[in-house]
Amino acid sequence: MATLSDIGVAAVINILTAFAFFIAFAILRLQPVNDRVYFPKWYLKGLRSSPIKTGGLASKFVNLDFRSYIKFLNWMPQALRMPEPELIDHAGLDSVVYLRIYLLGLKIFFPIACLAFTVMVPVNWTNTTLDKLQNLTFSDIDKLSISNIPNGSSRFWVHLCMAYVISFWTCFVLKREYKIIGSMRLQFLASDQRRPDQFTVLVRNIPPDPDESVSELVEHFFKVNHPDYYLTYQVTTLILLRMIHLDSCFWFDSCFLSTKQAVYNANKLSELVQKRKKCQNWLDYYQNKHSRNPSKRPMIKVGFLGCWGEEVDAIDRYTEKIEGLTRKISEEKEKVTSSTKSLVPAAFVSFKRRWGAVVCAQTQQSRNPTEWLTEWAPEPRDIYWDNLALPYVHLTIRRLVIAVAFFFLTFFFMIPIAFVQTLANIEGIEKAVPFLKPLIEMKAIKSFIQGFLPGIALKIFLIVLPSILMFMSKFEGFISKSSLERRCASRYYMFQFINVFLCSIIAGTALQQLNSFLNQSATEIPKTIGVSIPMKATFFITYIMVDGWAGVAGEILRLKPLVIYHLKNFFLVKTEKDREEAMDPGTIGFNTGEPQIQLYFILGLVYAAVSPILLPFILVFFALAYVVYRHQIINVYNQEYESAGAFWPDVHRRIVIALIVSQLLLMGLLSTKHASRSTPLLFILPVLTIGFHRFCKGRYEPVFVRYPLQDAMVKDTLERTKEPNLNLKTFLQNAYVHPVFKAADNVKDEMVVEEPRADQTPDLVATKRSSKRHTSGSSFETF
Amino acid sequence: MATLSDIGVAAVINILTAFAFFIAFAILRLQPVNDRVYFPKWYLKGLRSSPIKTGGLASKFVNLDFRSYIKFLNWMPQALRMPEPELIDHAGLDSVVYLRIYLLGLKIFFPIACLAFTVMVPVNWTNTTLDKLQNLTFSDIDKLSISNIPNGSSRFWVHLCMAYVISFWTCFVLKREYKIIGSMRLQFLASDQRRPDQFTVLVRNIPPDPDESVSELVEHFFKVNHPDYYLTYQVTTLILLRMIHLDSCFWFDSCFLSTKQAVYNANKLSELVQKRKKCQNWLDYYQNKHSRNPSKRPMIKVGFLGCWGEEVDAIDRYTEKIEGLTRKISEEKEKVTSSTKSLVPAAFVSFKRRWGAVVCAQTQQSRNPTEWLTEWAPEPRDIYWDNLALPYVHLTIRRLVIAVAFFFLTFFFMIPIAFVQTLANIEGIEKAVPFLKPLIEMKAIKSFIQGFLPGIALKIFLIVLPSILMFMSKFEGFISKSSLERRCASRYYMFQFINVFLCSIIAGTALQQLNSFLNQSATEIPKTIGVSIPMKATFFITYIMVDGWAGVAGEILRLKPLVIYHLKNFFLVKTEKDREEAMDPGTIGFNTGEPQIQLYFILGLVYAAVSPILLPFILVFFALAYVVYRHQIINVYNQEYESAGAFWPDVHRRIVIALIVSQLLLMGLLSTKHASRSTPLLFILPVLTIGFHRFCKGRYEPVFVRYPLQDAMVKDTLERTKEPNLNLKTFLQNAYVHPVFKAADNVKDEMVVEEPRADQTPDLVATKRSSKRHTSGSSFETF
Repeated sequence: MATLSDIGVAAVINILTAFAFFIAFAILRLQPVNDRVYFPKWYLKGLRSSPIKTGGLASKFVNLDFRSYIKFLNWMPQALRMPEPELIDHAGLDSVVYLRIYLLGLKIFFPIACLAFTVMVPVNWTNTTLDKLQNLTFSDIDKLSISNIPNGSSRFWVHLCMAYVISFWTCFVLKREYKIIGSMRLQFLASDQRRPDQFTVLVRNIPPDPDESVSELVEHFFKVNHPDYYLTYQVTTLILLRMIHLDSCFWFDSCFLSTKQAVYNANKLSELVQKRKKCQNWLDYYQNKHSRNPSKRPMIKVGFLGCWGEEVDAIDRYTEKIEGLTRKISEEKEKVTSSTKSLVPAAFVSFKRRWGAVVCAQTQQSRNPTEWLTEWAPEPRDIYWDNLALPYVHLTIRRLVIAVAFFFLTFFFMIPIAFVQTLANIEGIEKAVPFLKPLIEMKAIKSFIQGFLPGIALKIFLIVLPSILMFMSKFEGFISKSSLERRCASRYYMFQFINVFLCSIIAGTALQQLNSFLNQSATEIPKTIGVSIPMKATFFITYIMVDGWAGVAGEILRLKPLVIYHLKNFFLVKTEKDREEAMDPGTIGFNTGEPQIQLYFILGLVYAAVSPILLPFILVFFALAYVVYRHQIINVYNQEYESAGAFWPDVHRRIVIALIVSQLLLMGLLSTKHASRSTPLLFILPVLTIGFHRFCKGRYEPVFVRYPLQDAMVKDTLERTKEPNLNLKTFLQNAYVHPVFKAADNVKDEMVVEEPRADQTPDLVATKRSSKRHTSGSSFETF
Repeated sequence: MATLSDIGVAAVINILTAFAFFIAFAILRLQPVNDRVYFPKWYLKGLRSSPIKTGGLASKFVNLDFRSYIKFLNWMPQALRMPEPELIDHAGLDSVVYLRIYLLGLKIFFPIACLAFTVMVPVNWTNTTLDKLQNLTFSDIDKLSISNIPNGSSRFWVHLCMAYVISFWTCFVLKREYKIIGSMRLQFLASDQRRPDQFTVLVRNIPPDPDESVSELVEHFFKVNHPDYYLTYQVTTLILLRMIHLDSCFWFDSCFLSTKQAVYNANKLSELVQKRKKCQNWLDYYQNKHSRNPSKRPMIKVGFLGCWGEEVDAIDRYTEKIEGLTRKISEEKEKVTSSTKSLVPAAFVSFKRRWGAVVCAQTQQSRNPTEWLTEWAPEPRDIYWDNLALPYVHLTIRRLVIAVAFFFLTFFFMIPIAFVQTLANIEGIEKAVPFLKPLIEMKAIKSFIQGFLPGIALKIFLIVLPSILMFMSKFEGFISKSSLERRCASRYYMFQFINVFLCSIIAGTALQQLNSFLNQSATEIPKTIGVSIPMKATFFITYIMVDGWAGVAGEILRLKPLVIYHLKNFFLVKTEKDREEAMDPGTIGFNTGEPQIQLYFILGLVYAAVSPILLPFILVFFALAYVVYRHQIINVYNQEYESAGAFWPDVHRRIVIALIVSQLLLMGLLSTKHASRSTPLLFILPVLTIGFHRFCKGRYEPVFVRYPLQDAMVKDTLERTKEPNLNLKTFLQNAYVHPVFKAADNVKDEMVVEEPRADQTPDLVATKRSSKRHTSGSSFETF
């Protein structure tokens, strides 16, 4: 058993490791050659250019200014310095809200830790229960926990009160945070510049019609049912953007000929676009070469791999090739768009005003509630194009299939892995590849394989798991990347809760647990889990240090992107464009990052009243992660989409679930401690927490789901006052075009460059007093 | 144990009882004196007048035409003869949809019964398991059930297949029915005449404003946020109807001074209105008297109870009194409406077109999602006025409180009743009222009390239960009578499921069950219940006959209203108006009737695969109840509100729950029968059923919750074409006025008389082809 000093030593080692990472990071980030690895965000925003262009040869690659090495930790204050509004401008609201999850952890656990160390630790420590048990080995850690209190002691009332304090404090902080983030979201949406998705509604499941094409159908339907907002007086103002269902690769869809056809068509188009891109890159390369040495035109051979054959002028050849491809692309594009088969029953419908779009998105259009489904269109870059064409019945079946599949994945994933493990032993390999036998039989290699192989299947599975979950979510038919990531996060959290949290507490696989839970009564389950909680404190402390601390410190070093970038840079990069593509800024990774944080929330809440010694470790994790991720968000991560913090209801819900789990487990633990008098009092807590959750759900969640008419009206009014002659039609013209078409249209426009945001806050026009009061000004405060 | 012949005798007895009821009914209904008891619906509709006025004295009270007694059952074909569309016109869609629940029972169980009797009965009967068990008493009923099959027999595969067949058939019928009723609802709403609630939205939780009154606030808010539909060009077209929160009698509200004030004010008003009504009645009485004998003016004494004092002219005196009261009422009304304290933050907002109302009802108005809550306004007569003023936080707390209260009511209701039972024994009564001791000590009375008392507390509780549940629902804050009844039905169903169904199967109170369920594992619970199912078949057969058959036959006799009407008629009735008020047509009673039907559904589904002998009894119940209730709906029940079948999703959900329960119980039963090989196959069924439910919920439920824009647009267009000069403002003027004010305004207008419906179907105007195709015509078919 680990004693306090053991844990102390482990903590020191982990802190030193983290420091080593930080020093390595501090050195690497100052080298100009790594600039694109550690500051890609600035390159993407166009605010930083390659430092290679300036200075001498050595200083191109190595930073020789030794003074900059001294302050090796100064990135930390730098990361903290950027104020929140600027950060929202710089990296989007999603990132800021994501960072607030870490802050929320600090806000919840810092007061709880202080209280626990002043109240709980003395209460637990001053008992002698464990000292009396001579035949049991125990550590100082256990003396700090609830295990040290004798059965039936009246000291359990302290734990009971503590559970109440923890629950009320957590709910209070959660409610305040929900409110703040809700108003941040509304403020963000209100102060946001004009964006196509504000005017646009996604219409799905348009019923087929034998006489009319989808586009005619949409036009007629909305002309009739939204006459005032959909139609201007000229019919030409109609903005109707059709999209093509492209690389739908699931077996599920392959039974429909029309879909197959579309896949074929668009594949050819996308192939041509890729080809042209490559040629364009070569053209750039030779043009660069030519501009550096204008006297000599670069020549290439036309034969296989450019090794033999006739020599021709490279620039001319590639220009020619590109022209030919562009012609082919436009032909192909024409073919795809004109073919009715490739049209899917979905459309983006835009309105003259935001008010009209809000109304259309929130109402039911047709009397058949599975047709003409409208919803707020995601941002153009947030759309997951492949799922737009799924009919309603498929969605229901797919969800059911995935629910069952996820159940099996969670509880039965060990079965195939165990099977692979039995196959992948020394004898198996020797049988499969007999000529390796002498090599394998070498002692060192043999022991390595024997130690390594059993774990590798599990390791590979865990690495692949997020991709499996993402595939599941895609199969389910979500239509935006943000909702895909949210669903993945939910699933990943459930997986981690069952396979990490529960399986660590009650030793055993998920399947064994499922079996025992099915055969245990409802009152027995919390007892079974609760009773093992205090014993696992040391394990989770180590887990936090290794997975949390070291993981976060490793995140800032970005070893994998660093290596890959330099490899690419060395072997593949020809032009500046190639170098830009070699950068891998990555994203926040909500689908894996948030469930990890949630694991720490549940650990903190469960252990707060049981073994408060865990709390400081969690606090260190939250603080460290906050600083590191703030730095990464500012300097590294690329923003793939902006959902304006739409994931917060999920975060909130999971913390509430963690709170309820902690209450139930404490109830189970206390009832095994013969403190059953206190359990009825504990039973009130989950009921109140559920009530709190329902209240929050009704009070704050709609802000994240629907857009209020009032706000739309205010923005419309402002816009009409400021820009009375705005031509919305041209603005919306090409907003919702499938990326392949965009690429087909424009050679240069492949990189998603964030549009600069309007900095000034919109002025308020003088409207009626009541409307001003209740729409823009005071509602921030009263929210 | 009851044998088949025992059951047969019981059935014959019950059938004879039912026939006796029918004969009694046939005789009673033909007497003119009972006409208002058995045909009140026609009186309410104004289509029948008192038969007393014609014929001789005897024929006023007794029907002397003996030929009419011969065909004593001819009300049955009469009841079935009225076609469905006419019935919708006559009694509303709610009644017709309610009747379809019985039809649904027949549709589900008739084919199942046929199949079960051809397949299951031979399979069960041809075993000898029970014959072999010499020491066990068993009946023929048990030989027909699954108990007769030896453990581990492969015949259980038949039961498994049967479970699949039952599930698929039930789902198929349910889906078809949901579709039919959905389109009936839409057709009803579409063909319906113009009604105020089509244009009106209920706005609740209007935030307080220090500067503006609620009415100004509402006007400003909707002028700004719904400019095109809320406002006409004249401000006067604004339709804004305020209501007063009146007789809010809960302790919960009494902490608010403003509410109290309103209660006080309106109480006075309503008192005055009552007084005037009484005077009016007396005036009518004396006027009648005078008209029969014009030579003599009726005189009354002004003293106490009209026994002494000065004699005055009665007609003059009451006319005077009424005038005085009318003056007072209008003063009081002025006072109430002008006092800002009595205004609640809720309003009915009307729109120029249905489209505007649909949009407003379905969208979020304000950025604070708990303010400016809009929802489709219920019919004026459907509104439950007392709950309109509840703020959002209260609603959350109230729901939580009621959820906890209902939990305790369901599981702990036996505790107070047992307590009362211990008190209410002979000794207790003797102690409380010693002077009754000699009387009580008499043998006959003593044994009667001893036999009667223990049951009386429970009986009273069960009679009062629907009122308790209704009180709970009212406390929860629902705003329409229809939603109150729906919620009551849900609660009543849960209560019955636990305290009738489960408690009958596993002998024991709900509390004992709860305890054993908490201490049993998830796999154990279905086994415990499942294993006792076959044994309880005879009990439930008796239950169906006594509660179902006799209950339905008793319903048609209407003994209670009959007695009360004649008592009132004899002692209280002075004028024709009094006689009208002495009628008690009653209503369908969805809140108690539907849960009772659901109990039969669950019995049928659970026993279909276990003891099919139960099915014929259920079929007889459904058939009998269908005829009886159809008759009652045509001739008796008054329609209190019209929700256009809004309760169907509840009915559907409960049948699906019954189906899942039956599947789980069969799984439990089979696993105790050593047929565990079949349980994995059975496990698929609940998963599929849940999938089916989710599909139906998404596909059909929105029809019952939201009103599609398309339909609103069609109705608007039709109306504008047919009545271009319609003045909607006058139409909506007084639609949503609190009944007290209505009564205050108009002396004569106390009876709710249904407006005659427009018979011709609305013509279609020639619109664009696509709109015609997809809005009115084909959507009925494609739905």
